[in-house]
Amino acid sequence: MKIGVVGLGSMGYGIANSLLRSGHQVVGADVNPDAVSRFRAEGGLQEDIASTAVDLNALVIVVLNAAQAEDVLFGNQGLVDKLSLGSVVILCVTVSPEYARSAAERCAMRGIDFLDAPISGGSVKAAQGKLSVKASGAPEAFRKAQPALDAIAETVFELGDSVGTGSAMKAVNQMLAGTHIAAMAEAITFGMTQGIDPATFMKVIPRCAGTSWMLENRGPHVVSGDYTAHSAVDIWLKDLGIVLDAARASKFATPVTAAALQQFLAASGMGLGREDDAAVAKVYARNAGLQLPGAGN
Amino acid sequence: MKIGVVGLGSMGYGIANSLLRSGHQVVGADVNPDAVSRFRAEGGLQEDIASTAVDLNALVIVVLNAAQAEDVLFGNQGLVDKLSLGSVVILCVTVSPEYARSAAERCAMRGIDFLDAPISGGSVKAAQGKLSVKASGAPEAFRKAQPALDAIAETVFELGDSVGTGSAMKAVNQMLAGTHIAAMAEAITFGMTQGIDPATFMKVIPRCAGTSWMLENRGPHVVSGDYTAHSAVDIWLKDLGIVLDAARASKFATPVTAAALQQFLAASGMGLGREDDAAVAKVYARNAGLQLPGAGN
Repeated sequence: MKIGVVGLGSMGYGIANSLLRSGHQVVGADVNPDAVSRFRAEGGLQEDIASTAVDLNALVIVVLNAAQAEDVLFGNQGLVDKLSLGSVVILCVTVSPEYARSAAERCAMRGIDFLDAPISGGSVKAAQGKLSVKASGAPEAFRKAQPALDAIAETVFELGDSVGTGSAMKAVNQMLAGTHIAAMAEAITFGMTQGIDPATFMKVIPRCAGTSWMLENRGPHVVSGDYTAHSAVDIWLKDLGIVLDAARASKFATPVTAAALQQFLAASGMGLGREDDAAVAKVYARNAGLQLPGAGN
Repeated sequence: MKIGVVGLGSMGYGIANSLLRSGHQVVGADVNPDAVSRFRAEGGLQEDIASTAVDLNALVIVVLNAAQAEDVLFGNQGLVDKLSLGSVVILCVTVSPEYARSAAERCAMRGIDFLDAPISGGSVKAAQGKLSVKASGAPEAFRKAQPALDAIAETVFELGDSVGTGSAMKAVNQMLAGTHIAAMAEAITFGMTQGIDPATFMKVIPRCAGTSWMLENRGPHVVSGDYTAHSAVDIWLKDLGIVLDAARASKFATPVTAAALQQFLAASGMGLGREDDAAVAKVYARNAGLQLPGAGN
């Protein structure tokens, strides 16, 4: 297949390379020309996505947010107008279910199929073609997207034929993941006030009922004092923002998630937006006058 | 050894039986005379704990809360005054670190060793002698408690020689566990507003980064609509109350845990205090007009 990938950030670059490895012809596009040059040097087609769009079987969107996706699909770049009838848009961006439905409707009006397909797994799994995809859309969209999904994903959760369900499941997952990171940060610093150092916390809690996937993944960052961003604080401003917007639209109260978002907002306000999301622990430490591992001396 | 067990509820009964199975002589005590009779019929000593206290090597306390422990040890029952020098009190109750320290100090004044030893694992593991114990205390207290711990626990986290650290680690664990239950309830009901039914939620999220031990354990209760109490809503009023009291005393702000406690308080206010703690989902469902599995027709 001939596939376009828009967004060659850490996730998109891995996706584009995974598609190449599976034998597809791949056109990469990004606002950063260096990323495009690098991808072309590694085997990507030497074509411009706007001029080649008419030949694409599938267009994979891996930009940062709904605003960028809107620009790519219907705005300044307007690629949907350039695609051929019967091609498929695979939207891998974390967006609101409402936005996914709106984008799908506008694609349908142009005869373009649409798969709501937010991804998880991080840049390492993206590079390995082992992402997790929460996908929903018409059977025809699934059929057309299958070769691309086979190349980029280890797990595809097929969530039915309603566009929006994939994004909804992603929102639900992010709601829990973000809340669990904040809860980890709250507990590891509370423990410090009670005489439990973070290293001891991480020796005990992962073996207890209080553990979570995120605690086991992010807790070691606090113990080592290494906040090199794997996933940044500011991602949660966006993703939990999507959750709270969708919840508000449904008149659904989310007090626990809302409290968690406040802590990420405080972290971003402290200038930590681009640090690893485990840096939300620094909000608690600052408030309580605690010295986290790696801080100070 | 000759060991007394005060509190023959679901946890204490299992502990007392595990001690019996390991060959110890065991005296059981409870405010409920039927529980005592039953335990005596199964091999417990036919003695009254007050009169036999002088002969005990160890006294295991498995009552509900600090107020009951205080009554047993120093109040109406005042068993500490009846124990012999050099015996050990093993406090398995979830109490504040401050209470554990206060109890240990008063035991020390009477020449009684003290192990701060809150337990986890539920009644089934208690019956199997496979509890998890977060223990701290002087080496002498550990040494004297060891035969009892061997009989009742699969895992003993040895958390140093400061009484209070065991209770602090338990508080940290409960903080996370309670918050994760509320987060699960919030997410599974939010998902319903976005077209995701609880069964689909539980098929997907346990395989994603949003999972937690509690989500995997309690989520199925929401899916099946079975709120038979394994661990009741009201336990979180007590345990998260301990956390927030200790946090307040340390001037440590816990916005996420505080939000979670409010949801358990609302559940208890709805009359659900003795239902399984997964019933906190009913607070969300009621607020949003959702029908959970098993509710109504």
